[in-house]
Amino acid sequence: MSLEIAKNLQATIDKRPLVHFITNYVTANDCANICLAVNGSPIMADAIEEVAQITEAAASLVINIGTLNAKTVQSMIVAGETANQNNIPVILDPAGVGASNFRSEMVILLLSTIKFDVIRGNLSEINYLVNQKTKIKGVDAVGGFENDQRQKIIVECAKKYNCLVVCTGKIDLISNGNQMVSIDNGNSIMAEITGTGCMSTALIGTFCAASDDLFTAAVTGILVIDIAGELAYLEEKNQGLGSFHTALIDHVSNINFSTLELRAKINETKY
Amino acid sequence: MSLEIAKNLQATIDKRPLVHFITNYVTANDCANICLAVNGSPIMADAIEEVAQITEAAASLVINIGTLNAKTVQSMIVAGETANQNNIPVILDPAGVGASNFRSEMVILLLSTIKFDVIRGNLSEINYLVNQKTKIKGVDAVGGFENDQRQKIIVECAKKYNCLVVCTGKIDLISNGNQMVSIDNGNSIMAEITGTGCMSTALIGTFCAASDDLFTAAVTGILVIDIAGELAYLEEKNQGLGSFHTALIDHVSNINFSTLELRAKINETKY
Amino acid sequence: MSLEIAKNLQATIDKRPLVHFITNYVTANDCANICLAVNGSPIMADAIEEVAQITEAAASLVINIGTLNAKTVQSMIVAGETANQNNIPVILDPAGVGASNFRSEMVILLLSTIKFDVIRGNLSEINYLVNQKTKIKGVDAVGGFENDQRQKIIVECAKKYNCLVVCTGKIDLISNGNQMVSIDNGNSIMAEITGTGCMSTALIGTFCAASDDLFTAAVTGILVIDIAGELAYLEEKNQGLGSFHTALIDHVSNINFSTLELRAKINETKY
Repeated sequence: MSLEIAKNLQATIDKRPLVHFITNYVTANDCANICLAVNGSPIMADAIEEVAQITEAAASLVINIGTLNAKTVQSMIVAGETANQNNIPVILDPAGVGASNFRSEMVILLLSTIKFDVIRGNLSEINYLVNQKTKIKGVDAVGGFENDQRQKIIVECAKKYNCLVVCTGKIDLISNGNQMVSIDNGNSIMAEITGTGCMSTALIGTFCAASDDLFTAAVTGILVIDIAGELAYLEEKNQGLGSFHTALIDHVSNINFSTLELRAKINETKY
Repeated sequence: MSLEIAKNLQATIDKRPLVHFITNYVTANDCANICLAVNGSPIMADAIEEVAQITEAAASLVINIGTLNAKTVQSMIVAGETANQNNIPVILDPAGVGASNFRSEMVILLLSTIKFDVIRGNLSEINYLVNQKTKIKGVDAVGGFENDQRQKIIVECAKKYNCLVVCTGKIDLISNGNQMVSIDNGNSIMAEITGTGCMSTALIGTFCAASDDLFTAAVTGILVIDIAGELAYLEEKNQGLGSFHTALIDHVSNINFSTLELRAKINETKY
Repeated sequence: MSLEIAKNLQATIDKRPLVHFITNYVTANDCANICLAVNGSPIMADAIEEVAQITEAAASLVINIGTLNAKTVQSMIVAGETANQNNIPVILDPAGVGASNFRSEMVILLLSTIKFDVIRGNLSEINYLVNQKTKIKGVDAVGGFENDQRQKIIVECAKKYNCLVVCTGKIDLISNGNQMVSIDNGNSIMAEITGTGCMSTALIGTFCAASDDLFTAAVTGILVIDIAGELAYLEEKNQGLGSFHTALIDHVSNINFSTLELRAKINETKY
């Protein structure tokens, strides 16, 4: 997988792909900056009159439901259908699904209308997509499942929606239903700032925009944010969460393949 | 009051309470991060279809009118009524009230529909709520009242709306109408970045989410932002406003009771 | 021109002018902070019920179409007409014009309804306003024109809309149709974070709020962001894009006339 990860990193530098975001207003700035930090070209646009055309010009579409409203859902559907028709990869961040019936119904609607290529969420969110019954506390909550059960939920989700599922947590799991990669990188401090999840999704979206190998693109995105998080923590641990936030973006912008290769703790399993 | 402040700080660590924000898009990221920095769990949600359910699950509700529109006001009313029915504390930040008739009418509507537990504003904003006649320049303006007159306005506001009033400025005043606490901490540089007011309100909302003693929760919130501001200024004074912004969040995330106790300049008066 | 630039910097300190922003949610926080960093007083407000009154109280109006929707366009028109009636300078940032028909039509609508005093964009955006045919990749793209052709486009734009045009890029060009100033400051790293363009526009808006000499105000705004960018790069070049973002705001907040005079690389031409 190493060679593919290296190619993925290089591809964004070569292509500077346009990534279309329909995302929440809380972390939109972070998502734009993290996309730029790996040489992507972000455009945030959610007006229904323009989303189809923006998506057509883009190399990937990232849909994040963090501050969803009824109007934006319509724009997401138009953009998602356009992406599907044009074979543009679509990435879903079901931020906070399960926190309200509305949010959950809207996600179900999106999943029944759009074929997503990648879904990135925490375990509570992924579990909700499979079982429609988790109650989530906030948008950052994580359930208390054993590792085996976690893997099972993720594989189920990947099969149910016929897509790649990225479940972030202490150990990150990535599966297409047949294959599972686990990544044991990152640092728990990453959950103490807002937007780490959204930025992970943004990175996956950016790497998917530059590569046809979406599995490797997703692995690359998670490795980049996790290892940047480790390095930022090492550097900033005595300073606080404001400095950590800044350092996280610093290290994403400075990441290179040799650092990834040196620090990556990846396991691959096939079923 | 010291013991109660210490308990308040500890309570957010123990409970990691969910705080529901309906807030402006300018400082939403700062509000989420400052809530996380004191171990709260923020959720930003303003769609009318979901706000009641989100508020029901939350331990407090923060309403900030910074970039208000007619649609969001409806969501604020639904969320506020839900909070009132469920005895969940509601905190109002009347950002920029008086800057336009619309904003002022909407705040009056909110105050006539929702029972707020805490109102946090600057003197111009608090004065407007009492007298409905201040003209405000921007959202950060401060009037030129003598200290006695300021105290009178705040007490009047507390009595008029039967709630706790927190008036931030050079000296911060907190009153429930019968009791007044003044806090002589903070630094004037805090007014030179956007969001310090919103973050103060966010901190009050987070501490109110973890404690039944709302007065102490409000005092704790103001002490935390003020003393973090002092420490950030000491550290960053030669660097500039970008570094100050980062350092402010750093010091909020690192604050502990002994620092508060050492630096707090509090005065209590009863009427 | 030096004396006028010095006066312009001083004027914002003396007047702390109110600047009304109708802007995108991606960089709203950066725009507010950069306005504060040069002693402006920002207010972000886009509700149609209040924009006229906010504009009336302001010393300038900045319209940025970054995350435009049909509703906000109506607010922009009301605010712009109010500004025109009250001789308040109006600054347009046509962010991403050409990226969709909707965005382009809305900008044409704005330009036919409102008399803008300043337009600030990159070359692709300015070219679109003149020729209505550029396709833009993302919102940050720059075309590949020779210097002579670039100057021609900018002069045409200034004449077509009878206003000042500021075209940012490797070399920044400012023209009113009769006079051209070119500024060879800044650093290419500025394009690697989101919001540099928006912040340039915000600075121009803030200096225009404090001065009747809009040409000098525009030159001052560009010099401030460019030279702050140079200094931030010198300081932060080994750290990454998060630190650069912070340092950029630091150096804008610390800028003074002697630094500008020392580093400015300005050329003036008259036709």
